[in-house]
Amino acid sequence: MNDLILALDFGGTKLSAALATGAARRDTPPQWSDLRREWTPAGAAAEHELATMLRLAQAMLAGRAPTAVGVSFGGPVDSAAGVVRLSHHVAGWDNFPLQARLQAAFGAPAAVDNDANVAALGEYRFGAGRGTRDLLYVTVSTGVGGGWVLDGRPWRGHDGMAGEIGHTVVDPAGPLCLCGKRGCVERLASGPYMGADYEAEMGRAGEGTVTGKDVAEMAAAGDETARAILLRGARALGVGLGHAANLVNPQRFILGGGVTKSGDAWWAEVRRAARATALPEVNVDIVPAALGDDAPLWGAVALTDEGM
Amino acid sequence: MNDLILALDFGGTKLSAALATGAARRDTPPQWSDLRREWTPAGAAAEHELATMLRLAQAMLAGRAPTAVGVSFGGPVDSAAGVVRLSHHVAGWDNFPLQARLQAAFGAPAAVDNDANVAALGEYRFGAGRGTRDLLYVTVSTGVGGGWVLDGRPWRGHDGMAGEIGHTVVDPAGPLCLCGKRGCVERLASGPYMGADYEAEMGRAGEGTVTGKDVAEMAAAGDETARAILLRGARALGVGLGHAANLVNPQRFILGGGVTKSGDAWWAEVRRAARATALPEVNVDIVPAALGDDAPLWGAVALTDEGM
Repeated sequence: MNDLILALDFGGTKLSAALATGAARRDTPPQWSDLRREWTPAGAAAEHELATMLRLAQAMLAGRAPTAVGVSFGGPVDSAAGVVRLSHHVAGWDNFPLQARLQAAFGAPAAVDNDANVAALGEYRFGAGRGTRDLLYVTVSTGVGGGWVLDGRPWRGHDGMAGEIGHTVVDPAGPLCLCGKRGCVERLASGPYMGADYEAEMGRAGEGTVTGKDVAEMAAAGDETARAILLRGARALGVGLGHAANLVNPQRFILGGGVTKSGDAWWAEVRRAARATALPEVNVDIVPAALGDDAPLWGAVALTDEGM
Repeated sequence: MNDLILALDFGGTKLSAALATGAARRDTPPQWSDLRREWTPAGAAAEHELATMLRLAQAMLAGRAPTAVGVSFGGPVDSAAGVVRLSHHVAGWDNFPLQARLQAAFGAPAAVDNDANVAALGEYRFGAGRGTRDLLYVTVSTGVGGGWVLDGRPWRGHDGMAGEIGHTVVDPAGPLCLCGKRGCVERLASGPYMGADYEAEMGRAGEGTVTGKDVAEMAAAGDETARAILLRGARALGVGLGHAANLVNPQRFILGGGVTKSGDAWWAEVRRAARATALPEVNVDIVPAALGDDAPLWGAVALTDEGM
């Protein structure tokens, strides 16, 4: 069957659409024939984003009908119902029937899931998870979120909420997280929180200009404050991974997102803390994501024969 | 098909064998036709336990061949290989080919798994998990261990180690656990550790006479020290369950084991802490086990058509 798969990625600030042709299913990597992106203006709403995405896609399709449409969405999704629950970045996505709208627009079956689950599936089929049967993919970026593949299939949980490693607590005496708890993995390990913690340490609390990338670069340049904050974040993530290892014992952990580019010391501390937390008999294999920033598009292709 | 299923439970200190007849499979509760038990003498070794179990079973079978043999073992098991890894209580179980030995003895297919996984399956099929698709069963007793059923099937993990909620850390500044970490769920919530903590608080450290049951009874009678220790344990377990909820989002949590008989205040604190730890969108449904101390035998019956 000569598939023509439309892969869509609704990110927080940008929209990406790509076409994959040929035998893109069953573990053969997709062959990309076109890719288009557009950054969303501040204040854009859901209908505007959907209209932009349809325009990008229809320009690529040039009158052809896709075989299937796979979608990654940067926010909570009820994948079974095909409905976006909400976006933390863009208004108007509450209970949005994205699957139905896309099926009507393209006359093809569509599957929708959140970005972490889609990236997990992409890495499993085409990336750093090839050859395994189960994995936890964790993105460490502006937030910390995860997606499971268990026994070769996405595991989304009873409410579609599985993978929320970012809001497991590693230090109940730690700093307050937006979720209301103290010492969550996300509170300690995500980029913006590390930047804010650096500012606070330097007496510049609330400035909001230092990023996680800045902290990593300052740490690499020898700034002890930056180094302490970076390694505290790595340790928190490692403990969270160790807990996930003890609870679920997956074959592999795959880490993606901007913070994973923080250098060897960061990776070493993540691995050390995870190994120290997991029981000796529990496998801990932690590797970088292979698909980079386009993991959601690769995963969206995989989703078209997994989620429908 | 008129099944005759032999269910065996190798506990830490006692051996139980039971026969189930009739249509015991496919969610029909087994009809027990016989049950025999024997306590193992201190210092007994693996071969002695196996010989005792064979004697119990053969007396019940009276020359009949079982259709299948299901086995719960109180220690780590490689279920896929049918091999016991070791026992923490009885010598000689290291890498013991229990499945092969039983198949040879009874001329029937045998399936072996550890007690937490087997109890999880029993509760799923015949107990407090009926009507769900996924659950975490946790035994809170001399240790704290768990077993998963996900999407209707046992989830054992890549190394057969999934469910080790007892060795997730809830307080990195907490007391030292036998595993080498601090503030593990098992260190705070298991019966013997609660008893030891009570002794230490009363200046009787190391006596080893106070049990978890004693702590619960003293707490109920108004002993403030006992009450604080009991509720600290409940809170630790609740936080651990909240982490499991965020990570895996199962439909239900089922708690069994002696410590779960500690009364309403214990249950209320477990539920409160789990609810406070889980994200608001994440389901937290925590119920007592329904099958009681014979859950491993019920689960062993379920294992015969699940694990082979």
